[in-house]
Amino acid sequence: MQNFIQYTPTEVVFGKGTEALTGAEAVKWGGRRVLIVFGGGSVVRSGLLKRVEDSLEQAGVAYEEFGGVKPNPRLSHAEEGVKRAVEFGADMILAVGGGSSIDTAKGIAHGAANPGVKLWDIWTKKVPLERSLPIGAVLTIAAAGSEMSDSAVLTNEETGKKAGINTDFNRVKFAVMNPELTYTLPEYQLACGVTDIMMHTMERYFIPGIKCQLTDEIAEGLLRTVIENGRIVLKNKQDYDAQAEIMWCSSLSHNNLTEAGRGKDFSVHKLGHALSAKYDVAHGASLAAVWGSWAKYVYGGALERFAKFGRKVWGVQAEDDQTAALEGIEATVEYFHAIGMPVSLKELGVAPSPAELKALALDATMNDSVKLTRIRPLGAKEILEIFEMALG
Amino acid sequence: MQNFIQYTPTEVVFGKGTEALTGAEAVKWGGRRVLIVFGGGSVVRSGLLKRVEDSLEQAGVAYEEFGGVKPNPRLSHAEEGVKRAVEFGADMILAVGGGSSIDTAKGIAHGAANPGVKLWDIWTKKVPLERSLPIGAVLTIAAAGSEMSDSAVLTNEETGKKAGINTDFNRVKFAVMNPELTYTLPEYQLACGVTDIMMHTMERYFIPGIKCQLTDEIAEGLLRTVIENGRIVLKNKQDYDAQAEIMWCSSLSHNNLTEAGRGKDFSVHKLGHALSAKYDVAHGASLAAVWGSWAKYVYGGALERFAKFGRKVWGVQAEDDQTAALEGIEATVEYFHAIGMPVSLKELGVAPSPAELKALALDATMNDSVKLTRIRPLGAKEILEIFEMALG
Repeated sequence: MQNFIQYTPTEVVFGKGTEALTGAEAVKWGGRRVLIVFGGGSVVRSGLLKRVEDSLEQAGVAYEEFGGVKPNPRLSHAEEGVKRAVEFGADMILAVGGGSSIDTAKGIAHGAANPGVKLWDIWTKKVPLERSLPIGAVLTIAAAGSEMSDSAVLTNEETGKKAGINTDFNRVKFAVMNPELTYTLPEYQLACGVTDIMMHTMERYFIPGIKCQLTDEIAEGLLRTVIENGRIVLKNKQDYDAQAEIMWCSSLSHNNLTEAGRGKDFSVHKLGHALSAKYDVAHGASLAAVWGSWAKYVYGGALERFAKFGRKVWGVQAEDDQTAALEGIEATVEYFHAIGMPVSLKELGVAPSPAELKALALDATMNDSVKLTRIRPLGAKEILEIFEMALG
Repeated sequence: MQNFIQYTPTEVVFGKGTEALTGAEAVKWGGRRVLIVFGGGSVVRSGLLKRVEDSLEQAGVAYEEFGGVKPNPRLSHAEEGVKRAVEFGADMILAVGGGSSIDTAKGIAHGAANPGVKLWDIWTKKVPLERSLPIGAVLTIAAAGSEMSDSAVLTNEETGKKAGINTDFNRVKFAVMNPELTYTLPEYQLACGVTDIMMHTMERYFIPGIKCQLTDEIAEGLLRTVIENGRIVLKNKQDYDAQAEIMWCSSLSHNNLTEAGRGKDFSVHKLGHALSAKYDVAHGASLAAVWGSWAKYVYGGALERFAKFGRKVWGVQAEDDQTAALEGIEATVEYFHAIGMPVSLKELGVAPSPAELKALALDATMNDSVKLTRIRPLGAKEILEIFEMALG
């Protein structure tokens, strides 16, 4: 086991009707003037935004709305939010939505606490982040895990780069999590969420050569849980327990618990980010589209890990590691298919030319300046081969 | 799944040599004048106390020593600590030790922040706790889980009562956890620790009628991990990975993660506390001595849970729940025996008279005023029957 730091200070308020506690939570964590960050009309139409605002009002908290967050959230939109937060004199940023709204709220909080600093300079670490505003979240989709994670991802439309930063300032103070709010999500979004949750766990699991028994147990149990309940909610979106399991999995998959003593990799995310930035495809789908090709390309460097994954997560019986590893990969790809996810670029609906494929490989590796995965070093040449395998 | 709040803000700094980071952590969490709380001479003899003090000095932190904590820590000693903390002008209380030192540090922190208030009035909730001092911990034994829990237990020697309080003020700000520090512990203490960790998990697991799949997966995985590594360290105390697994299990068993959506019970702890307060026996041993009798008494009220426990934790193959439940209980009792724990009062070395047994049952149920366990209500009469079963 390697040395590690585990720090997950977010207060999770989980269960039915918990959005009514938003106002009290905001006050508890120092919010008196709250900028509410959300996406499209669904939180308005469902009445959720109104319920959240009622709760804030009852707690004596002033608020202002800032909507318009889109999937793969844009830097320019977060910068607009910074202006609004400063004008309003916000002392807390509250996301009502999923990962895109929460990541935008994180960006706004950092920007509003550092007026005059360009947000992208914080994202690219040109300017060190030394303060931020407190952030709250009312979660409406189980997927990104941003409600407990230390990461936030924004897309710079000018440069076409999608990038994340990891900092404890990204830790949300409180996360209100009512699984009932996910009942109305389209199947495709539910499946994207399940995929993202699996990926957050798997992107930590395969790193070879480090013994972490409890961390493995948690990761394997989490994967079995999200896989089984993913099937259930796609048949019945109003199964409370199943939606609750998925939502709790989303937080624990990405709050560092599944990496304790081992660390993380996140190479598949780099491929997915390159695709999302270029084609604006859904994050979860972009990961499913390349994961199988990535896994088949790298598994030989972590054979024992992939074999364990096959046996523990998918119940593969094969005694030799080679077979167990490949059967586990196959079962994962089949599962993605079964829940309606693409497992190739073609199924993702993108058809890059050879030149575009090369550009994607360069994007994913920061112009071939970094090697991806802790399983075996992958530069732009190797990533290109994976993208080619994934064409479909 | 029931509604729940999960709040585990403790920063865990885990791994080899991490005690050297104590000073920096103290400063990070606001400590400039630190009262160091510890037990006997072992932290002195091992050089750990010196290393911690060196680290504080290097970080410019003033400190004063307050030793003498004993197992089943005493209220009067904590009150003495409060005086010392106030005299020293401490702004942080730092435990160097196990659960007893950490719980004493918690008591001192609460007392020092509320001068003039009797500590036991806080413990009995006569005076509501509204402020405390920040607490840090350098852990030397994996057992109580106090390093991440919201609970603290003290024994009032005047009344003979051992009682705990649960409050977020009991959440340690930072916990330095170096598994190497546990290499020198006596086998009996290691086994007591393993038992306590198992018990913290089991005291949440058996509550029937609530579906919590991920919470179950975590609990079962944690139990398998601590059971297996308990066997390993009793053969080789210097197995770093095994000690590390047990230490990480100790924190996660008791930081509320294993109760998310289900809650907790802690009825066996009530029996153990009555025994420890009366006979000053080791906490873990007191739990092992009564658990089997408790389980055989109550399992019919949670048959499906006990059967699942047998199958998932102990690999019991029996298809009928009755057999699987009983085999799981038997395997647990055999395990306690195998690691050198008592499984009866006789083996614990206590021989209460019938009148004393009755008094213990009254102590455990606060004079028959509360019913124990969420499996089936147990008053003083039923607890007496369990104690009689446990006589051995």
